[in-house]
Amino acid sequence: MSPEQPSPRIRKSPEQVRSAVHQAVIDLLSDPEGADLTIPAIAQRAGVNHTSIYRRWGSREALLADVVTTRLERDWPLKDTGSLRGDLIAWAEAGVASIRTPEGRLLIRAVALSMPGSHTAQGERAQQFQRRIAAIESIRERAAGRGESPPSLEQILDQLIAPLYLRAIFGIDPPASGYPELLVNRLLGGAPGA
Amino acid sequence: MSPEQPSPRIRKSPEQVRSAVHQAVIDLLSDPEGADLTIPAIAQRAGVNHTSIYRRWGSREALLADVVTTRLERDWPLKDTGSLRGDLIAWAEAGVASIRTPEGRLLIRAVALSMPGSHTAQGERAQQFQRRIAAIESIRERAAGRGESPPSLEQILDQLIAPLYLRAIFGIDPPASGYPELLVNRLLGGAPGA
Repeated sequence: MSPEQPSPRIRKSPEQVRSAVHQAVIDLLSDPEGADLTIPAIAQRAGVNHTSIYRRWGSREALLADVVTTRLERDWPLKDTGSLRGDLIAWAEAGVASIRTPEGRLLIRAVALSMPGSHTAQGERAQQFQRRIAAIESIRERAAGRGESPPSLEQILDQLIAPLYLRAIFGIDPPASGYPELLVNRLLGGAPGA
Repeated sequence: MSPEQPSPRIRKSPEQVRSAVHQAVIDLLSDPEGADLTIPAIAQRAGVNHTSIYRRWGSREALLADVVTTRLERDWPLKDTGSLRGDLIAWAEAGVASIRTPEGRLLIRAVALSMPGSHTAQGERAQQFQRRIAAIESIRERAAGRGESPPSLEQILDQLIAPLYLRAIFGIDPPASGYPELLVNRLLGGAPGA
């Protein structure tokens, strides 16, 4: 919209601001000393005015949510394998690959940090959670469209998302092989065929 | 040991220091603005010299680990029900009760934060994780002593700890009733009897 206020800093385009702010969030999250993840600290690191951040994102949670959903779409793309089991295994495989990297673990910690706090109603928290895991909702919808009966979101949360995310958050590596299939077999039951 | 250096602050006994520092950690964790959880910030809030914290705990992770294991022992006590299934359900019931409170959710977020970072070897992280969930190890050992075959720690992590912890971290309430039994039945399989 209107240009930034004049400032001693080099003026950035909106896309440059977004990119610098996203990178600043990732950098601060990576700080092993547990740096202050506040909007002023993010603004300083990104070299932008903190008013630009408030104007564009409104709150720290909204900014974090933008960062994590952008990165999740990029790092954890959605495959259409033609079956519910195949889609879930592909999702879990992407997840396992991701949490084997420091950046992937960081992203998942950021997903947790970006969730609205306890002062937010349970319904709103559940909605925000669904936004973070939009890929899982797409997998469920496609399965329903094919006439399959997908598990509930709560079942997928408990048996597929939770083990992957908790291992990322706690830094506990998944088993070396067969882990995506193991989780999906537990979730769907029955034989791994079809 | 030797008394604190003279300071304008009121001198505290070691137990008062520990209590004030623990409370400062909890307060900073509760800050919805995401306050800086650094040793200087903790020291300032607790009204103690930051050198006292470094001397006593050595690092932020060690301090957080002391806070969370102390609180977990107090808020999530271990029951001996006489069977593996009973012990696991009792543990999950305590967990569900805990994560229905803001303090309980905070504690679990702190358990995650207290885990050593990616720069630490996987074996050390796994050890630290076992320290955080010492109750689960006790339940497994008691079961083995009775001749039962408890699931592996990894199975318990994926199917019992992960769903509870992730719901706490993400602020997604567990189902209103029967959730501890549901998780334990999934973990142990078979009928819920005996």
